[in-house]
Amino acid sequence: MEFTAEQRLDDDVLERRFTLGEIPGILWTPASPSEPVPLILLGQPGDLGRMYPRLAARARHTVAEGFAAATIELPGSGERPRSAAAEQARADLRRVLQAGERVGDEIVDRLVLPLVEKAVPECRAALDALLPLPGITGPAGYAGGIISIGVRLALVEPRIAAAVLFAGSYVPRSILEEARRVTVPLHVLLQWDDEGNDRQMALDLFDAFGSKEKTLHANMGGHTGVPAFEADAGNRFFTRHLK
Amino acid sequence: MEFTAEQRLDDDVLERRFTLGEIPGILWTPASPSEPVPLILLGQPGDLGRMYPRLAARARHTVAEGFAAATIELPGSGERPRSAAAEQARADLRRVLQAGERVGDEIVDRLVLPLVEKAVPECRAALDALLPLPGITGPAGYAGGIISIGVRLALVEPRIAAAVLFAGSYVPRSILEEARRVTVPLHVLLQWDDEGNDRQMALDLFDAFGSKEKTLHANMGGHTGVPAFEADAGNRFFTRHLK
Repeated sequence: MEFTAEQRLDDDVLERRFTLGEIPGILWTPASPSEPVPLILLGQPGDLGRMYPRLAARARHTVAEGFAAATIELPGSGERPRSAAAEQARADLRRVLQAGERVGDEIVDRLVLPLVEKAVPECRAALDALLPLPGITGPAGYAGGIISIGVRLALVEPRIAAAVLFAGSYVPRSILEEARRVTVPLHVLLQWDDEGNDRQMALDLFDAFGSKEKTLHANMGGHTGVPAFEADAGNRFFTRHLK
Repeated sequence: MEFTAEQRLDDDVLERRFTLGEIPGILWTPASPSEPVPLILLGQPGDLGRMYPRLAARARHTVAEGFAAATIELPGSGERPRSAAAEQARADLRRVLQAGERVGDEIVDRLVLPLVEKAVPECRAALDALLPLPGITGPAGYAGGIISIGVRLALVEPRIAAAVLFAGSYVPRSILEEARRVTVPLHVLLQWDDEGNDRQMALDLFDAFGSKEKTLHANMGGHTGVPAFEADAGNRFFTRHLK
């Protein structure tokens, strides 16, 4: 891992850009750390450039509550090389949605599974690189989308001790089966009127998780309308489980 | 209203028993108030004697967050005179449940509607008596069950500015219709595996509420298994809306 740039946000947060091999990422830590803090890996839907303002706002909030936060670019997004198969799956999805047809399992699998296969090992490599840094300690948390990545990561990565997941409905059946074997505490956010998602599928996914401690927070509004107070709720969840 | 007894809890909370006509109740306020605090009316399933330990724990927590809390006995519960019709409805419900049959609308109406008709005006009379007391200010909140009482109260009582409701499934159809006209901010708790309730009916009720701001918090476990951290979440909700 190589740090490529750094700046202060509000004097309190140190933001460092890095590359992990070909993968760009960002790390946010307290500017004046008093003791090592647990790391929250922030999931995002791809394209760090476009997502930066929302990610930086979340990271500021997370660091203010006594954590470090980091994110890496998704495979095939932002400045990373495109995958022809992923582009094809996205084009097929758009065609189905425009035709008003039901999105079939086959398209969902093609859309999501290769991404999960590639992104999850990259998240684990990021933990390998970030957790040993001075000022950062384990265990780690995962917060955000894409939910299928969060499910797989929570299942296979023992250093992830708790996760805040955003319920989305394009979840392959095989991931739903993996969800049954997830056991870490979960905090699941659902937007009740999310035009891009199927509410019943999201409720089914929440029901499927094997975790003894899981909480669903459903709020009104569409995909990007998660209320600001949910950031506090997520941080309090991580404080209960990572500190 | 007449105060009949008082004691301190932990030095910080003043607990006063009162009677409002024939209705017994309890008021909890800060022992050393610095400024008037909003009132939270605590709903409960009936029998203050049996419910006292849980109510006192909730009230302590509520007062610590800068509120007053109060509760009154339900019609037909505790030391209040029984209603023959309500006893009959409860006996009919028990018989249906023991036979493993579906609980029909007719029994639910007989069980819940007379209680709502009587309890809601009593809650409003309690607000009349409590809100003018020194150290207490409006607006007020309602927290707890029975959910049909909370729905009606939130609909008809303008001094209730926000409500934390416990989703239960024996909700008459007419109350579901009233829920569509409720507009105050709501925070709804659902126990995902509540043996006494129907999850889908609870989700339908949440969906029905007309409020623009409503949040559902679903947690694992049965009816009495609401996690301790939900008390904090409820108080933060009231802090956002009553202060």
